[in-house]
Amino acid sequence: MQEKHHVVVVGGGFGGLQLVNDLKGAPVRVTLIDRRNHHLFQPLLYQVATTILATSEIAWPIRNLYRDRPEVTTLLGEVMGVDTAIKTVTLTNGRAIAYDTLVLATGATHAYFGHDEWAPVAPGLKTLEDATTIRRRVLLAFEQAELEEDPAKRDALLTFTVIGAGPTGVELAGIIAEMAHRTLPDEFRRIDTRKARVVLVEAGPRILPAFTEALSAYAHRELEKLGVEVLTGTPVTDCTEAGVAIGDAFLPSCTLVWAAGVQASPAARWLGIEADRAGRALVEKDLTAPGHPETFVIGDTASVKQEDGKPVPGIAPAAKQQGAFVARVIRARLAGRPAPGAFRYRHQGSLATIGKRAAIIDFGRVKLKGGLAWWIWGIAHIYFLIGTRSRFAVAWSWLWTYLSGQHSARLITQKETMRVEG
Amino acid sequence: MQEKHHVVVVGGGFGGLQLVNDLKGAPVRVTLIDRRNHHLFQPLLYQVATTILATSEIAWPIRNLYRDRPEVTTLLGEVMGVDTAIKTVTLTNGRAIAYDTLVLATGATHAYFGHDEWAPVAPGLKTLEDATTIRRRVLLAFEQAELEEDPAKRDALLTFTVIGAGPTGVELAGIIAEMAHRTLPDEFRRIDTRKARVVLVEAGPRILPAFTEALSAYAHRELEKLGVEVLTGTPVTDCTEAGVAIGDAFLPSCTLVWAAGVQASPAARWLGIEADRAGRALVEKDLTAPGHPETFVIGDTASVKQEDGKPVPGIAPAAKQQGAFVARVIRARLAGRPAPGAFRYRHQGSLATIGKRAAIIDFGRVKLKGGLAWWIWGIAHIYFLIGTRSRFAVAWSWLWTYLSGQHSARLITQKETMRVEG
Repeated sequence: MQEKHHVVVVGGGFGGLQLVNDLKGAPVRVTLIDRRNHHLFQPLLYQVATTILATSEIAWPIRNLYRDRPEVTTLLGEVMGVDTAIKTVTLTNGRAIAYDTLVLATGATHAYFGHDEWAPVAPGLKTLEDATTIRRRVLLAFEQAELEEDPAKRDALLTFTVIGAGPTGVELAGIIAEMAHRTLPDEFRRIDTRKARVVLVEAGPRILPAFTEALSAYAHRELEKLGVEVLTGTPVTDCTEAGVAIGDAFLPSCTLVWAAGVQASPAARWLGIEADRAGRALVEKDLTAPGHPETFVIGDTASVKQEDGKPVPGIAPAAKQQGAFVARVIRARLAGRPAPGAFRYRHQGSLATIGKRAAIIDFGRVKLKGGLAWWIWGIAHIYFLIGTRSRFAVAWSWLWTYLSGQHSARLITQKETMRVEG
Repeated sequence: MQEKHHVVVVGGGFGGLQLVNDLKGAPVRVTLIDRRNHHLFQPLLYQVATTILATSEIAWPIRNLYRDRPEVTTLLGEVMGVDTAIKTVTLTNGRAIAYDTLVLATGATHAYFGHDEWAPVAPGLKTLEDATTIRRRVLLAFEQAELEEDPAKRDALLTFTVIGAGPTGVELAGIIAEMAHRTLPDEFRRIDTRKARVVLVEAGPRILPAFTEALSAYAHRELEKLGVEVLTGTPVTDCTEAGVAIGDAFLPSCTLVWAAGVQASPAARWLGIEADRAGRALVEKDLTAPGHPETFVIGDTASVKQEDGKPVPGIAPAAKQQGAFVARVIRARLAGRPAPGAFRYRHQGSLATIGKRAAIIDFGRVKLKGGLAWWIWGIAHIYFLIGTRSRFAVAWSWLWTYLSGQHSARLITQKETMRVEG
């Protein structure tokens, strides 16, 4: 008996999972490789960083998702390279895995524009560990401020700076401000957490540039209502333990969060194909790697253009659509049918929240802002979570936060200990 | 105006919190110091280690508990010593805090009977980090086994050894066995997780020695039904990365968990008073330190005798009763009333669970085992959790696990990465 066509998928994010889901029933066997054992619902990761959700509410073990699909093998492992000549993927443990079709869906990480030395002081937000690191630092800053005698140091401890005003930066700044100004004031005896400063720094001319100017201006006003200081047109020139340099000014701030740039995973380098400035592989219209029709690159690690020449945005729905498209191509090829020639991105809308009461939504013709948009945002996110348990757990945590004003995951964990002087 | 009597409490465990709760309305100001920002519901910590509960479901920020008590100040800090002469507690950051009354409720940690070199390979279970470490190691062992080609190495990866058969050891072994034999089998393609071995090693003659022989024997049988190999009368003589030495035999086992011994925190040393072999401070009948009537030691870090000469057990209800007793003494002293002279421990019962369906309870005259005991155990633990949110969240997680057979927190997090060869 001839072995079935072997599809190797690297990356269990939104694109990779959609692809594996859509290959159900196809005459293939699938190996899904990820260096994490869990799929992460990235759009809500900022809520783990800001103590609203628990890690396990937005992460799900990948192999559990495919327990009923015996043709799917899940491997915990990290890819080191691809040999397109002999059609093999190499893992860091030396193991080589042969493929008939390869799909690289390895995502992106944060980028510091050539200033990797900023990483330790200004962590980004891509993994569960990133989220618990930010959570720990934010909570520790308040704790240290409560103990601090020196007023200048105390002010620096109570200044939180978020760099980059895309959706993640706006969401982080909004929740940190709400936490400082509404959740925590009764709990401290020596500091007034209402005097904490939350500063959102953006190099571009306005926040949330993916939205219309009107929605962006609304979000700007709402953030200011929450007590966030919004600085636009102000590139950050240095990040240190003491604070952040913005042009010629220096803002003393002990807690920095990086939400500014992304860098694609090295999929293009593994394949030896061209990449754009952010490292995204330049793929053909059908998402194959140039010269390698059996190899696809999808999601945040691929550079794909829309029909109007604009890049497809690096968001979950785009990755999912690409995963679904590749599944259709693979099925057509195996059935001997003509495969769809070009991926077409269908933009379903852009969403961003500002704190716990307002959001903006751009569905193209329909634009929403305020409370209704916030409810739509919340319901959409619960809908897209994986599994009944997560949906109930997140809905319960949100309901709790909404009704009580309390956050449910205010834990300082992991090893980095408090550095308090004096 | 004279400043109010200052009670300094070190440790936000069961004893410390009960004390602070019971001082409500007393003419005192309270400073509560803990090196963690959260109170931990230790009796359920093993469920975090075994992927049933999330960390935030059993931990609660201490300062949040006292937000409505302005006379209570919470400090995140680690105590380094006590100067009883000038009545001052010193923190590791150099700060000194003066007290009128001091209560040390600093608990215990695991002890390796002089073999501290076993700690890295056989982690114990006292903190949230311990629990996520054990969770990560158990999950990684299955992942590595799935990738392993060498049958001997695979067997060692699929052998889980729990050392010490008190309630924690029994609970850990039971859940790991259930996970291997019932939750995971469908999810792996190359290994049969039903063949995993879970070995519970006990130096003493029987498991759960705090219970009657009949209940202990029942628990032994139930564990074996779950597939746990129970070894009694077998002291562990060495722990290494490759496995565990039991007498002359060596059991290859990549995942070891230590549930055997405890060592009190250094409260006795800080006070310069005598301690027993486990480091517990030998206190007077009223829980004061000998020669220091203004200083109390309670909970797992105190050695207290019952009227029949038996030691008060190191369990949550005992710590709570001691906290309540000390609050009564402090109130009486401040009111000029005669203070109660001797702490009397009232044993409310012993509970232990074996897997997800059986438990044993010893209420003294009434003894229970099986399903009914399991329900009483579960309801009692939900009742004693702090806060409505946690109660709902834990009840929901348990209901989910009970109905679906799935665990909700199967996450491999933190930095230790997989070491896979071949």
